[in-house]
Amino acid sequence: MNTAPPLSPTPRSTIRRSSSRARTDRADLYAVLDAGLVGHLGVVLDGAPVVLPTGYGRRGNTVYLHGSSGAATLRAAAAGAPVCFTVTLVDGVVYARSAFHHSMNYRCAVVHGIPRLLTDPTERLLALESITEHLAPGSWSATRRPGPKELAGTAVLALDLTEASVKVRTGPPNDDDRDLLAADDPDPVWAGVLPLRTVAGEPEPCPLLPARTPVPARVRNRAAQLAGRDVG
Amino acid sequence: MNTAPPLSPTPRSTIRRSSSRARTDRADLYAVLDAGLVGHLGVVLDGAPVVLPTGYGRRGNTVYLHGSSGAATLRAAAAGAPVCFTVTLVDGVVYARSAFHHSMNYRCAVVHGIPRLLTDPTERLLALESITEHLAPGSWSATRRPGPKELAGTAVLALDLTEASVKVRTGPPNDDDRDLLAADDPDPVWAGVLPLRTVAGEPEPCPLLPARTPVPARVRNRAAQLAGRDVG
Repeated sequence: MNTAPPLSPTPRSTIRRSSSRARTDRADLYAVLDAGLVGHLGVVLDGAPVVLPTGYGRRGNTVYLHGSSGAATLRAAAAGAPVCFTVTLVDGVVYARSAFHHSMNYRCAVVHGIPRLLTDPTERLLALESITEHLAPGSWSATRRPGPKELAGTAVLALDLTEASVKVRTGPPNDDDRDLLAADDPDPVWAGVLPLRTVAGEPEPCPLLPARTPVPARVRNRAAQLAGRDVG
Repeated sequence: MNTAPPLSPTPRSTIRRSSSRARTDRADLYAVLDAGLVGHLGVVLDGAPVVLPTGYGRRGNTVYLHGSSGAATLRAAAAGAPVCFTVTLVDGVVYARSAFHHSMNYRCAVVHGIPRLLTDPTERLLALESITEHLAPGSWSATRRPGPKELAGTAVLALDLTEASVKVRTGPPNDDDRDLLAADDPDPVWAGVLPLRTVAGEPEPCPLLPARTPVPARVRNRAAQLAGRDVG
């Protein structure tokens, strides 16, 4: 995997707060993007920010976004406006001995850039495949591909990942020395991490599906991947 | 609960895409905000959007945000810049019979406004209590309160919830009629929902905690709440 150039190449993509949490390896960026399900896309409309959740896909150093070609945020992004695309995974609640040091364990990728509106039919299909496969691996080849009318109503954008940063917090709370009591304190304040993760429940078949249609491997594998289990 | 005024009172807070998913009851807004752990705060810096994840709290019709008083996004928001604050919960992967109709089930709250920088010490403490309790219920009274130095370095913002919208998708895929095959098709494309939820694992005690310190009820209850279980 080609992971050059380095992360955080510009002032606005350089992490200043809690900079010890900054990652510098582009592979960490890809890992966070690949692990997330939705990102939050920010654009400026009439001078004010608008932040909306969206699915996405990744191929190499590019993130793909899509949406209705009539949506105001997509239209602005397609017209050359700068965007910020952020993917956050919450990994745990950090309980500290003080209110101040309560925190979360998380992985967060922030991408800055001006997206490119895709017009080439082949590139558009590859991008849509990437978005579909990111959400539901295996679905692109198992389901009907987009038709001309669906394609005409969809804006597909490519966002280069060059200007990006990654911040990761792991581990126990960073309490002040003054809050760390003697080891023989009979009633210490509990501190530690409550780990969180996203899991899948049992697949819920569409009511219009013929009874006893088996749940395909792609859906079962998706559930297993979310659980972090090896799907072989 | 006072849930007036209605949601989506302005053009930019009025949902246009898939408007059947828009909720109009302010109680739905509160429910989404109360169920989320992190939100994504968007501000405009040097003409470009910046979107960063952050914890938050809610009291009545106000969301509270906080952060280092030195952070550029907080400084901009505190100086009267418009912000957008978005909380998204992903509830499931929607598998359709076409790539186009693949989707997610989700709950999403979007708030627009200009935050107010809190200066009153009592109001600041109430806001910080709300933020701490949102993340870790019970922790405010169980742990050391913020001291003068910690308070001096923290910016606390209040964002009014008047201009907000809520969008919720639930249920099976919305497939085209052409993709709904006859009930006797021997090999139909599976369609349905893979439900997702966030669960907590076993609490991980801080290594500096005396051995055998019991996990308090507030942490065990947090895990149970995340699992959607009744904690009595």
